[in-house]
Formats: sequence, C-alpha cells, structure tokens
Amino acid sequence: MTDPTPTRQGADIRTPESALAAFCHAALSAVGADEATAETGMRAMLHASRIGVDSHGVRLLPHYVRVIESGRVNGRAVPTVARNFGATALVDGDHGLGARVTYFAMDKAMELARTHGVGAVSIRRSSHFAAAGAYAMHAAEAGLIGLCTGNSDSIVRLHEGAKRFHGTNPIAVGVPVEGERPWLFDMATSAIPFNRVHLYRSLGMELPPEVASDADGNPTTDAATAIMLAPLGGAYGYKGAGLAGVAEILSAALTGMRISVEILPMIGEDMSTPRELGAFVLALEPAAFVERSVFDDTIRRYVRAVREGPAIPGGKVLAPGDREWAVEEERRRAGIPLDPETLTAFETIAARFGLDMPARC
Amino acid sequence: MTDPTPTRQGADIRTPESALAAFCHAALSAVGADEATAETGMRAMLHASRIGVDSHGVRLLPHYVRVIESGRVNGRAVPTVARNFGATALVDGDHGLGARVTYFAMDKAMELARTHGVGAVSIRRSSHFAAAGAYAMHAAEAGLIGLCTGNSDSIVRLHEGAKRFHGTNPIAVGVPVEGERPWLFDMATSAIPFNRVHLYRSLGMELPPEVASDADGNPTTDAATAIMLAPLGGAYGYKGAGLAGVAEILSAALTGMRISVEILPMIGEDMSTPRELGAFVLALEPAAFVERSVFDDTIRRYVRAVREGPAIPGGKVLAPGDREWAVEEERRRAGIPLDPETLTAFETIAARFGLDMPARC
Repeated sequence: MTDPTPTRQGADIRTPESALAAFCHAALSAVGADEATAETGMRAMLHASRIGVDSHGVRLLPHYVRVIESGRVNGRAVPTVARNFGATALVDGDHGLGARVTYFAMDKAMELARTHGVGAVSIRRSSHFAAAGAYAMHAAEAGLIGLCTGNSDSIVRLHEGAKRFHGTNPIAVGVPVEGERPWLFDMATSAIPFNRVHLYRSLGMELPPEVASDADGNPTTDAATAIMLAPLGGAYGYKGAGLAGVAEILSAALTGMRISVEILPMIGEDMSTPRELGAFVLALEPAAFVERSVFDDTIRRYVRAVREGPAIPGGKVLAPGDREWAVEEERRRAGIPLDPETLTAFETIAARFGLDMPARC
Repeated sequence: MTDPTPTRQGADIRTPESALAAFCHAALSAVGADEATAETGMRAMLHASRIGVDSHGVRLLPHYVRVIESGRVNGRAVPTVARNFGATALVDGDHGLGARVTYFAMDKAMELARTHGVGAVSIRRSSHFAAAGAYAMHAAEAGLIGLCTGNSDSIVRLHEGAKRFHGTNPIAVGVPVEGERPWLFDMATSAIPFNRVHLYRSLGMELPPEVASDADGNPTTDAATAIMLAPLGGAYGYKGAGLAGVAEILSAALTGMRISVEILPMIGEDMSTPRELGAFVLALEPAAFVERSVFDDTIRRYVRAVREGPAIPGGKVLAPGDREWAVEEERRRAGIPLDPETLTAFETIAARFGLDMPARC
C-alpha cells in the first residue's frame, strides 16, 4: 500500500524492530492475552510497521490493549474449525483478536490448499485484523498464493451515494517470487484511507479531488468537512464499490456475520460488545495447476517486465511490494519510526503495566 | 459494466434477441464452428448484448468469424481437463473460441465446487472470451458464486508507466440473489475501455481526466492522441495496476501462458497464429460454508441496503447488475440495437454465407 501523500513532520524517533516486537508482545500479555494472541497480534502489527504501512502497524497496540481489557476482544480465544466441507472451512474466531483468528484461518486454508490445490476459508466472530496483507504475505512466504479480504464499519459512500456505506474493505493478494520477497498487493477499496483525511486536516492541506465527501455525500477537497470516503475509481466509483461488495459478500454472507452498515464502529461508545466481524481467506497451490518451474518462470518474467518500465518523467514503475521491501530494508538498518501520539500511548502502557519502553536506535 | 459515457447517435435499428441469437449461431456454423462452439459463442455474445455491454456483444461476431476462418481460433476445439488435483483443474482449450473454452472451464469449476465447496480452474490455450461476466453469471445462475478473470494484449500503462503494459484484464464476480437476477460485477482494471477512446474520438469530445495517456505515457484528455489507457484509480493507479496483476498472475502463471506484453494483438498482421491466452475461473458453493438460508438472507439484506441509498442529487445508487437488468428488460420489449458498423458487417456475412439477416423489430 503506497499513497501519493505528504508525511507528517516531527522528531524522528526510531526503535529497533526486535525491541518494538518485544514491547507489543509484553503489552498484550500484560493485559491478559495468551501467548498465541500476543504472538500473532505482534506479528501482524510488525508486518505493517516493518514495511511502512504505519496506519496498520504498532499504532494499533493501544487500541488492541483497550479492547482486550474492555472485553470486546477475547484475549484468550480458541479459534476452531466450525465446519469443514472438502476444500473449504468455516472458522469460528471465538471473538479473538483479528490477527489470532486470521492467521489461524490462513493456516487452515494453506493446509487445505496443500491437500486439494485450493483452500477457501470464511471466518466468523473475529475482530479488527490490522493489514490484510499480513495474511496474504503469510501464504506467499510458504510458497502459496494467498488472498485475504474483510469488511468493516461504514465509512465509504456508494457510487453516487450520499451516506457512509461500506467499510474500507481491503483486498490483499500475495504471490511467491522465487529467490525474492513476494509480490504483495494490499489495497483498500476506498479511494484513500480515512487516516489520510485526518493527516490532511492536521496539515491544513486540500485533499485531492474525488476521494472524499461531505455530510451530504457531495465530493469535497476540504479535509475539515470530509466525513466519508469515495469508493476507488472517481467517476468510475462503481468499480471500487463493486470490489467492496465482493469483500462484503465473501466476509458476511459466507459466515452470517454483519454487513458493513450493521458493524459497530471501531471507536465508539460501546467498546465491550464483540463486533462479530467476518472475513475470508483463500490459498492456491501453484503446483496443483502447473509444474512449479513453469509458475516460477512466469512470475519472474512478469515481475521483471513490470520493473523494466519505462516510467514517465519523475515517476517510477514498481511491482506491488517493491516500495515496501525498500522501506523494510531501510527500517532494518535505521529502525522503525514512532509518531509522537503512539509514543505517548506507549509511555502510558509502559507505566501502567510496569514495562520498559522499547529502546531507541 | 456501466460507464458515465455519452452514447453514439444514429438510427435505432433493433432486432429481437431470438433472431440475433439465430444469426450468430448460423454465422459461426457457416464458417465451420461445431455445434458447441456456435452455441457458446452465441451465448456469450448475447449475454453482453442483452444487458447493454455492447462492446462485448454481437459486434464481436465478425471478428470471431474472421479468426475461425483464418485459423487463429479452432472452431471445432475439444477442450479437455489436462490436469486435475483435488479441487483444482487445468483446462486445455485446444485453441478454441474463448466462450467455448471458458464455459467448459466454469462448468468444471462448478462441478468441483459441488464436490469440494470450491473449484479453481486455470485455462491454457484459449482465445478472446468476450465479457468475463458471462461466466461469472453462468455460475450465479446455478446458485454458486462465480469469478472469472483473464489477461489480454497490452493497452494499459502501469502506474507512472510510459508504455502499454497490461491488457484491460477484467475481473467479474457473480453472486446468486434468491428470487432475483444475480448480483453481477464485471469490471476492466483499466480506468475505461479503449472503445471509449474511439467513441470520444468520433464524437470530437474531450476525455475525462486521468483515464488515458499519449505515446509518452503522459495523461491526456485529447482522444485523438490517446494511445494507451490509465489503470483504474487515477492518482491511485497502483491499485488498478495491482488488480490487473492479479488477473495476470492467475491467468498466465497458473497456466504457463503469455503475459500481456507477449500476447499478439487482437487485431494485427498475424490473424492465423493461436494467441495462447490464459484465464482463470473459480466457483464457491455457499452452502459449504453456512446454511443456505443464512447466505441467502445476508445477500438479500445487503442488496436491499445498497438500493436504499440515499443518492446525491441527480445520482442513483445501484447494486452491480441493476442497471444491466433494467437494460435487459427494456431490450426484451424493444429488441437489441445494432450499430451501423455492425449492421454492415452482418450484411456482408449474410451475403457471403447465404444467411437471412436477423429480422428487425
């Protein structure tokens, strides 16, 4: 996920990945999460922080601590396969942390894919799962094609719609590239994420056209009055809305969970009732379809062709994930940055639970 | 597929669907297609013509007649399951008409989905398959969720790219809605289809911003100099390019077929060498995941919520397919319109093969 977006200025405070991982794990454990929840929660957040998707990284830790404490999320959930038919399964998340439940479901999908060539798993009674790309990546790192999607509370209008309807309903696909980091595509089906609106607001900048709407659904570039997002596609927003619908159908209808307009907001008055989120993951074993070498050669040829460009002046042609792996490389050397708000929240958590703050680089 | 696009003016010549279907079938048969090819070719074209996706409808008939005659497409192809592993298959299209091969592959995916809950089928040695939605629709009409995607010759630049790279690489998903026509979503991963550029050219109109580029890859609104399309998403075109990449990977890498930049153009000097197109279809049996009534209730609730709007002034909120079913209804009454160019091509075909022209309404 990359966005043509300005970045917030400020002191560049950085911590080594290992210190940040240890802090996330300790904080989740301190609030009562079991080992599997602390480990997967940490893993999903670090996936995003490592590659620069900071909106879905460790800044979620204070939220996860809060919802485990308030009872919305079960920190000791035991996800189970509630139903298994052939190459499919329905996973019951036991109201666990989205990361715990979704890694469990993707592991199941991968197991099914190894046996049947494909595994499709719908997920019920889950919660916020951070970046969908974490789970697509999980499959890709094991040599499979992975897909992950989910729905979430209403924030995106329909095409020509005047109210918040879909969530940002992400779709992520990860594909193994032999000898390299995966091809990793992770997109929101909205034109932009809502935290971009917050960012433009705080920077006093105008939004790009056709990405957000005011309370009446009319397009606005004024970040201060924008209260909903446009679906991806601008004048062709029926495409983004349709993609959001695919996420919705796979996540809610294959599970009996809530559709976006029925989902409790991520932050609201009620922080203790489980949100009953659905989600969907799918894994494909390339070698079921063709010789592995045929698959690997085609992927390599494709990725190489993408990177060959050429680009327009000032532009750069990248394969999905390329920007992320460059960030990962830089952050491995220089550490992962913490924004001031997250740093303050971490200090509160550290004080409350008697934890050491993560070391700085 | 709906587009905020002006329509070409002209005499409104209409034919009843049945007459048009009979003409397509007869023309394909006359040029040597076997019954299965004539029937499926006709069915795919009529799917699009019936619902107003005229770019992928019967205007393709002269092209299909030509490529069967020239040998690029095998009009008597015998598609086979070249490989079957668990819930997956690789279909070999025997260089047949895309419609013949893709209906065959979707039938296989549906059979696998009934046995395993999901069926994933990659397709090799196929050809142009008209609208991807035809095959998604085929699954939805049988009560399954269907997905169809394919890649095609280069016409869409990459995000910030300066040359034609991906094809318009469509993604279509069809979902059964109990007691109604399906939820049917069929999108190109380009900002617009290229025939829109032709249309704007002939109307002397300016293109919308950020949908097409000139020979150097720079965005242009001048339809006369536009020679490539932008990926869906404008400033966020990495999303459209990534979606095109998903189509590319499923179609080419799971089959060993060509990536977009390697595919012979649809119209070019060489009309006799098979194009070796790949494609990919997937079917899901909802009842494998949840009770059918849970699925049906959720879909109905979702579709109803979409249609409730509200819309912005002058807008209208539709579920994917709604506009198409309205067109279908109108065309059932008033007939299917034929543009002057297609009418002329039909007259040539009728004269050559001694066929009666389809009756007019």
